[in-house]
Formats: sequence, structure tokens, C-alpha cells
Amino acid sequence: MLCNETKIRVIYADTDAMGIVYHTNYIKWFEAGRGELLRQIDLVYSGIEEQGYGMPLTEVYAHYLLPARYDQVLLVETRIGYVRRASIRFEYAIWDEKRENVLVEGHSIHAFVDSKTLKLVRIPPMIAERLEEVTAGDQEG
Amino acid sequence: MLCNETKIRVIYADTDAMGIVYHTNYIKWFEAGRGELLRQIDLVYSGIEEQGYGMPLTEVYAHYLLPARYDQVLLVETRIGYVRRASIRFEYAIWDEKRENVLVEGHSIHAFVDSKTLKLVRIPPMIAERLEEVTAGDQEG
Amino acid sequence: MLCNETKIRVIYADTDAMGIVYHTNYIKWFEAGRGELLRQIDLVYSGIEEQGYGMPLTEVYAHYLLPARYDQVLLVETRIGYVRRASIRFEYAIWDEKRENVLVEGHSIHAFVDSKTLKLVRIPPMIAERLEEVTAGDQEG
Amino acid sequence: MLCNETKIRVIYADTDAMGIVYHTNYIKWFEAGRGELLRQIDLVYSGIEEQGYGMPLTEVYAHYLLPARYDQVLLVETRIGYVRRASIRFEYAIWDEKRENVLVEGHSIHAFVDSKTLKLVRIPPMIAERLEEVTAGDQEG
Repeated sequence: MLCNETKIRVIYADTDAMGIVYHTNYIKWFEAGRGELLRQIDLVYSGIEEQGYGMPLTEVYAHYLLPARYDQVLLVETRIGYVRRASIRFEYAIWDEKRENVLVEGHSIHAFVDSKTLKLVRIPPMIAERLEEVTAGDQEG
Repeated sequence: MLCNETKIRVIYADTDAMGIVYHTNYIKWFEAGRGELLRQIDLVYSGIEEQGYGMPLTEVYAHYLLPARYDQVLLVETRIGYVRRASIRFEYAIWDEKRENVLVEGHSIHAFVDSKTLKLVRIPPMIAERLEEVTAGDQEG
Repeated sequence: MLCNETKIRVIYADTDAMGIVYHTNYIKWFEAGRGELLRQIDLVYSGIEEQGYGMPLTEVYAHYLLPARYDQVLLVETRIGYVRRASIRFEYAIWDEKRENVLVEGHSIHAFVDSKTLKLVRIPPMIAERLEEVTAGDQEG
Repeated sequence: MLCNETKIRVIYADTDAMGIVYHTNYIKWFEAGRGELLRQIDLVYSGIEEQGYGMPLTEVYAHYLLPARYDQVLLVETRIGYVRRASIRFEYAIWDEKRENVLVEGHSIHAFVDSKTLKLVRIPPMIAERLEEVTAGDQEG
């Protein structure tokens, strides 16, 4: 199953006065993971943009299980949840470095839009084909 | 029904290269709204902390309906969804300045913890009583 | 002398694990103050952009004197340092709510650019005139 | 001469509506570079904290030469400017991936403090010795 693992080092900028990572930063790392997953299948997001498309979020969800702290290394695991005619869902799990615990899990749903008008469009054929290709096996089993 | 409205002015720091507000910033404004709601009922969060408690998020959800842009004024509307023995839920709606459209809606759920150990605790009596008081009417109707 | 005072409430998102405001957030508030100063003299930055101009930073400096903490109210005081043919300098002082201490002081220098090409341009006449008008008194004394 | 190079991938969260990286994010990457430089000489910042010390910024300066954009890889080059009895200065240059251009250069100055009281202290002997050791060659030539 298609899966990307992106490494993140927590810096002070990511933490808050409770001594732990501030909750929106994990969601920012969801973006980092998503970008690397797309790169891994040769669908670099900046390339999607050059073709005139954007993929703004329509929803995001995060479930916080354990806190991360300054200087920890985190692993952002990203998968494709589904691909529909005009939307795509990504699933995330953020692990500690040793993969002992999931600290945060969540998902995001994205619409495909014309990057100039921000109006909804169908996933462009070339992108749809590539996504079907890489997720084909996932649907079967 | 208890409700807080907090005004936010979008600055450049909040926007991204798509020309709209980056999605995690709305969730940051959920925090601003939540803080003002607590202040409005005399439960300032820094006071809760001084008593040795914290309220870290256990989950957050945001649904993005319409984009906000640089220099827009937004209204963050915050309500209490429920209060349970060890957790509390807040509901949010972020409106444009004229209250014509909801741009983002969402919720967050928070656990009560000992601020030193980050271990779960029951909501301290004084806080529980105040929350019951202000949400009493909400449950009835 | 032209001066803008913008009020900021520190939220958790702004703090770090040292229990104080993370240093780049004051610089973000410089932007908030600068935006309000321009609004005060009817040169709203989004209007400058609509005319096809941008004002990216060429340098920024911040001097940290005292830390700010969660829930504090800060006052961002912004002044125009100078206006030159293709650049403008702003000066900032961030005070505690009672104006007892300056916590951070600094400045930023901005170039005028064509917002599409990001190439340097002279300050457009209408903007230059307005800036001269409001800073005229400052140069004299 | 002691120098650390840390790689950064620009994500959407780092950009602004001008289509380029928002200026405070480079300063956040100064922190990432500084942390890696300290790690490189076995002075991990979290270790310094465990010994009861902190190194808050007393000043920061950034000079913006060229903009970075979404998905670019940047190289943050960090060096130690000087080490004094109670302060330390770091120098930064942020390069494009091919090292053709410096996009941003700057410095930060840090005080040593007791991490509980935030009061100024001398650099603790063990840290001072290690810093002298690694910067010894720099002073000579």
C-alpha cells in the first residue's frame, strides 16, 4: 500500500508554554507529509499548480493521543484514503522516532479547484490516472 | 445561550501562496475565541493554569466552506458544546465581518489534566460549577 | 508625530516551551502594527496591492528586552522612520499593557516592487504624496 | 571553521499571499540551523536546558536578498560569530539548493539565563569549554 514517511525535528517554534508541541503544528506537518507523498508518486504539488489546479482543504481532523516535545524526531506517515471525482482524502499518523507510539492521527479532505477562480473542477485526467495507478492495489484486497 | 464573538484581522502572516488564509490559522483563531469565551465567564485560562490545571486538545475538526483573504475582518463565534466529568467541547463558526457567510466551522475537545504531569483529572469543582451555571439554560430547551 | 498603537492579546499559539512568547511572533506583530498605521493614513496595504505594488521586507531587526507571556495584552507602537524614493522604514516598540516597559523594539525596511514581477520600482506618486504629507512635521523639528 | 548546513523544504504553511516565503519563517529556520550546529558539537540544546539553562534571544537581524518559493529546498548555513562571558552570537546564510545565491543572511545574539528565573548567568563552564574548543581555530587565523 502506498505510504510516505517524512521525518520532522521539533524546534522551539513548534512548542507552547505547556512545554509540548502546539496542536496546529501537527496539522502543518500533515501538509509536509502530503507533499512528500505526492512527490514520491511524481505528482509534485507545484507541478499540479503549474497546470492551473489547486487542492485546498475542505476539512481536517486531528486526534491527539500523546504530546511531542522539543527536539523530538517525529515520523509523519501519510496514505491516500480515497480518490473521488473532485476530491481526495489523505490519512496521517504521526509516530515517535522509534515507532513505539502514534502521537497524533488524522485526515484531510481536499477539493480540486481551478487555481485562479478557486472554483471546483474534476480531477484533471493525468492526475486522476496516476492516482488510480498508485492506489489500485489498495482497493482490491 | 452562552456565546462569544471575537474579532480577528487577517494579516499577511496568516495567508499562503494560494492567496488565502492558510488552513491551520483558523484553528489558531479557535483558540483565541475559546480564550475569550472563558474570560467572558470569569474562567480566564491563565487562572485555570495557576490552579495547576491544563486543558490540552484531544481532538480538533475544521470544515472549510469559503476562503478568507488578507485584511479581512473575521468574527470567531465560540460556544460550549458540552461539559463532561473530564472533558469539554467547544463549537466554532468563523464568519465574515458582515455575518453573511460562515467561512469555517469546527469543534475542539479538551481533556482536563494536571498541568505538571499532564495526567487526566476530573474537572476541578470550582470550574465545573461555573461551567454548569453558564451552560444550564442550554441543556434545558 | 504619526504613531499607531495596536493592541495584541498573547495566545498559547504565540508562546514556546520556555513559557514566553516565541521571538518571531513579535515580528509578526510588527506587521500588524504597520498595517494599522497604513490604514490610519488611508493607505490600506490591500489598496496598495490593488494598484499593482508590493512592499516586501529588505531587512528586519528586533531587540528583545523583556519577555511577554500567555494572556498578556501588548501594545504595538509603530512609526514611520523614513520614506525614500524606493524604500520605507518603520520603527516599532512593543509595550506591556500599562506602558511601563518596552518589551521589544525594532525596525523593518521595505522596498517598493511591482507586485507581479517583484522588481524594484519608485514609490508610486499617490502613495509618496500621502506619506510626505503625514511625515512632513516629523522631519522639521 | 565550524559550520552547520541544515536542509529545509518550503511548504505552503511557510508562504504568504505575495507567493513567497513570509519573512519570519527564515528566522524560524535560523533556529533550526542553530539547533543542528549545537547538536553537531554535542551541545544539544535540550541538554543545556536539562542543566537548568536557557539561551533566549536578545536580538535578531535578517537581510532579505531574494525570495524563496513553495517547494524550494533551502540550505541554512550557521556559524558561531562570537562567544562572550554571558552571550553568544550566531551568523546565518540561507542559500538556494544549488548554492548559487544567498537569499537571506542574518544573525542572532543570545543571553545565557537560569531557565527558571530567566535571570542572566555566565555561560556554564562545561558549555564554555566546549564552545572555546570548537571556535579556537576561528579566532587565530
